[in-house]
Amino acid sequence: MSRDARLQILLAPIEWPMERMREELGVLLRAETPSVSDMVDHLGRFRGKQLRAALVLLAGEATGNVTDEHPTVAAIVELIHLATLVHDDVLDGAETRRRVASVNQRWDNQVAVLLGDFLYARAFQRSTQLSSRLCSSSLSETTQVICAGEIDQAAGRWDFEMSQERYESIAGAKTAALYRAACELGARYPGGREELGHELGRFGWEIGLAFQIIDDLLDVVGDEAVVGKTVGNDVADGKVTLPVLHTYARADEPVRARIRDVYTLPDLDDRATRLREVCDLNPGVDYARARADELTQSALGRLALLPESSARSALESVGNFVLQRRW
Amino acid sequence: MSRDARLQILLAPIEWPMERMREELGVLLRAETPSVSDMVDHLGRFRGKQLRAALVLLAGEATGNVTDEHPTVAAIVELIHLATLVHDDVLDGAETRRRVASVNQRWDNQVAVLLGDFLYARAFQRSTQLSSRLCSSSLSETTQVICAGEIDQAAGRWDFEMSQERYESIAGAKTAALYRAACELGARYPGGREELGHELGRFGWEIGLAFQIIDDLLDVVGDEAVVGKTVGNDVADGKVTLPVLHTYARADEPVRARIRDVYTLPDLDDRATRLREVCDLNPGVDYARARADELTQSALGRLALLPESSARSALESVGNFVLQRRW
Repeated sequence: MSRDARLQILLAPIEWPMERMREELGVLLRAETPSVSDMVDHLGRFRGKQLRAALVLLAGEATGNVTDEHPTVAAIVELIHLATLVHDDVLDGAETRRRVASVNQRWDNQVAVLLGDFLYARAFQRSTQLSSRLCSSSLSETTQVICAGEIDQAAGRWDFEMSQERYESIAGAKTAALYRAACELGARYPGGREELGHELGRFGWEIGLAFQIIDDLLDVVGDEAVVGKTVGNDVADGKVTLPVLHTYARADEPVRARIRDVYTLPDLDDRATRLREVCDLNPGVDYARARADELTQSALGRLALLPESSARSALESVGNFVLQRRW
Repeated sequence: MSRDARLQILLAPIEWPMERMREELGVLLRAETPSVSDMVDHLGRFRGKQLRAALVLLAGEATGNVTDEHPTVAAIVELIHLATLVHDDVLDGAETRRRVASVNQRWDNQVAVLLGDFLYARAFQRSTQLSSRLCSSSLSETTQVICAGEIDQAAGRWDFEMSQERYESIAGAKTAALYRAACELGARYPGGREELGHELGRFGWEIGLAFQIIDDLLDVVGDEAVVGKTVGNDVADGKVTLPVLHTYARADEPVRARIRDVYTLPDLDDRATRLREVCDLNPGVDYARARADELTQSALGRLALLPESSARSALESVGNFVLQRRW
């Protein structure tokens, strides 16, 4: 069974609210100005797994916190995610997104920046119409964490001695921050229930960070055909991720110099392949994998305080799902 | 007396709330992550006239609607403006902003996109902490108008037959939308007072649109030394503005062809100078100037319903100020 098919089964407990979420997202992706309308229509083709929306709804179901507004909160979370994707594609110079031309490719970088801004503003506007402010405040805070993390990632390029704490704060900002917000909003929205909300938020942070660590790992050692997307981007961009940081910290100076060269010498192609040639990355890979496992186990442990339910099982499966990516 | 010195005198009725606005803006421009903190510190050097903040406070004073939260609302409006400037500089490839290196120049386009996103999110977050939602909803709506207008401007490049309505909707989005929000929020925040709020909002829209029309005019016919910034950018970028649209509509086909050539032939330098050579722009310039006058007179007329006060006089002066730009 394909991963997507398995995911559909996991999401069975929230089939109906997911449908309502998609309707709401469709409404949010309409625009009056024809030139903007063309662009938001194009975004509809990017439709991915909508995992962040699913986390809002599963966290709500699993904690017995279900409101009429949950599908809207979930749609707003997806819209924020879509805005980050549009800007990420500009930052990365990406040409495709889920096999569809990226906005920057189909139009240009200028309008892609503006479209991302438009989507953020629309998400915030919709959140101000909800009965509680929790969604507005949580998502505007989370967006700052995401952007600050990406700025810090840019500032930390080619830093081979970055602490694991800073690495995790950057990797977490990229993925875990929005997973955390999704789970916490699901459990808490419209308010109160702080303790349970924070616990689900930590669950989201940990599986999000585990996901990003595995993603970073695949970028260094993955096989493009198996991973299903281009790899080696981080080495080319000067992003030193956990397996490399761990390897570098334990290497002697000649090996360190070779690692630095692979990242920094001008006009090298296929830097990730060269990196695997100049050092033994296996201990770093094992370490990163173990860290992702540890985070996932911690995340799953947090679910023990919830009563058994199909939604809780689905959250557990999402956690395991993260670790089952192959390379 | 310099324009800036005259502006300071105009703003005397709101000296104290402007000071509180600047303190609040200083707090909003602090960040914990050191790499982000470096960037927001740099933004502090861009400090301009802070006219949008002044409009919030003057509109409040002039309508007798003054609350403790007005300086914060004004600071949030300035922060949104700052976010649009950071992204505008990326879109325009600008190297300086008020004689200071632009963020994209000092760092790079990637982090400038992220910093703009960060500032938008911070502005929205601060607005969610206010007692009324009016600021959040108005500014998230306004940001969409600004972005949609800029997207439409990009889609409408080299469109020599654009309607005046579409031109004004684009020019208005760039400047008038945030002026409108500033004036309306000043008069209405925290709520109620819809009629007066809309009237002040229309005042803001009209002077903002008049300002942008004059700005567009200066870009085509202004002298760089007098205007105080580079001119000719719109012709180089394919933006066909009101004086040109009006001239083109009334020109015969040979002149139209020459106008199109000046905009579109590859590798031309100094396109604005050439444009002035291939056609008589004077009727278009007069028309645009008259339209800006008409808008300003309409805007000033709206203030008649307010009681006399130093704040009302200041709003009138801001309106006249817009038209006194020289070329």
